[in-house]
Amino acid sequence: MNAGKLYGLGIGPGDPELLTLKAHRILTSVPVIAYPTLENGNSVARTIVADFIRPDQIEVPMPLPFSVERSSQPYYDIAAEKIAEHLQGGQDVAVLCEGEPMLYGSFMYLFGRLAPQFLTEVVPGISSTTASAAMLGAPLTFRDDVFIIMPATLDAQTLRDRLAGVDAAVIIKLGRHFAKVRTLLEELGLLDRALYIERATQPNQRIIPITEIDPAEVPYWSLILIPSQTQPLGATRSCSVETLP
Amino acid sequence: MNAGKLYGLGIGPGDPELLTLKAHRILTSVPVIAYPTLENGNSVARTIVADFIRPDQIEVPMPLPFSVERSSQPYYDIAAEKIAEHLQGGQDVAVLCEGEPMLYGSFMYLFGRLAPQFLTEVVPGISSTTASAAMLGAPLTFRDDVFIIMPATLDAQTLRDRLAGVDAAVIIKLGRHFAKVRTLLEELGLLDRALYIERATQPNQRIIPITEIDPAEVPYWSLILIPSQTQPLGATRSCSVETLP
Repeated sequence: MNAGKLYGLGIGPGDPELLTLKAHRILTSVPVIAYPTLENGNSVARTIVADFIRPDQIEVPMPLPFSVERSSQPYYDIAAEKIAEHLQGGQDVAVLCEGEPMLYGSFMYLFGRLAPQFLTEVVPGISSTTASAAMLGAPLTFRDDVFIIMPATLDAQTLRDRLAGVDAAVIIKLGRHFAKVRTLLEELGLLDRALYIERATQPNQRIIPITEIDPAEVPYWSLILIPSQTQPLGATRSCSVETLP
Repeated sequence: MNAGKLYGLGIGPGDPELLTLKAHRILTSVPVIAYPTLENGNSVARTIVADFIRPDQIEVPMPLPFSVERSSQPYYDIAAEKIAEHLQGGQDVAVLCEGEPMLYGSFMYLFGRLAPQFLTEVVPGISSTTASAAMLGAPLTFRDDVFIIMPATLDAQTLRDRLAGVDAAVIIKLGRHFAKVRTLLEELGLLDRALYIERATQPNQRIIPITEIDPAEVPYWSLILIPSQTQPLGATRSCSVETLP
């Protein structure tokens, strides 16, 4: 019997319609679907694609620790073992990954463990960074612009150094690091250009002026976008861009 | 009569299956479809979605100059006027944009001209940068990594400065700038980590070891990817990643 094939499916930032046709085809045709869950059993990834899952498909929840203090690596060891059993049994397995698997994606930890042994295909997904730009109606980069993505978890000096000389930036994983980032942007004169969004394209998406944000209320799934100033002729951001409900 | 709605549709890097469900729904339901063409009439964007276009849909080709010496702005003026006529007539118009509209996308030039007057919605698309990572089986970034995207059109010193201190990078728009970038990566000791791909996910996609590339043969639609070295436990890139035909 041939081993099954492993799929790493980028399922996008939240709106189920932002799955690709390919991810949708694979998701609805594989016998086994695996996805990360919090220890309480909740899964953002499963919620996104809930309407596409059939009752006859086998589901493999992969519990991950919520706290950053605990290493998630032993959890991925267990998940990889469970998935490997299905693959060895000849079943294809699709692992759901929010956003884009290769860009800070949870799937890469399974990719590292399983791709050396099993045929593996990664299906790219819509990243929350570009989905946020669409929701905000804010073109990110033009022509020769340099674009950077940085986690807010880095210290202020590193963030400052990396922002120097780039034309556009996205600062991800804000959460409890929001106040530090806000102070830094103020120092660098970037606060006027900065746009804030949380849970882009999800039903509870929020866009808030950056000066009105309560740092205590900023979730992990939020980001700040600093669009390029290389605006083309006639460009403006003060337009009627429709966002998802 | 109400004016029509303008859609900027990210259609991804080349594989028609990498359209999102949303882009596919809008593309197959609007009365008018516009897309950039070269002056000879060829359109990469139209080719990608050719199988989804119906004979009863109105097509609006938007000729753009191939030469970088000529400004494309007057061409966008003309295209915006043509599209505005349909919108004013009450017809929705979908503008096709290869890759991701907000990231170096051609749609942004129409966005700047038309979004101030017409209801506009941008639908994010799969970027060639992350699609390339999937095709190469190369995870880009983990955890606290900093990620940069830079056009090869920049001078060597700027490229060198921006590469300093980042964990992962994609250098886009290689074309005739390949030799300069190769020399730079060699100087910085990055050549061993660099992966080359052209026309990712298109039928004529090519992945070539970077040391075997003829600089005279490098197309504009090629890029070099430098993945993060923050590999998680057990990660490897020497695996059987399936690429598209």
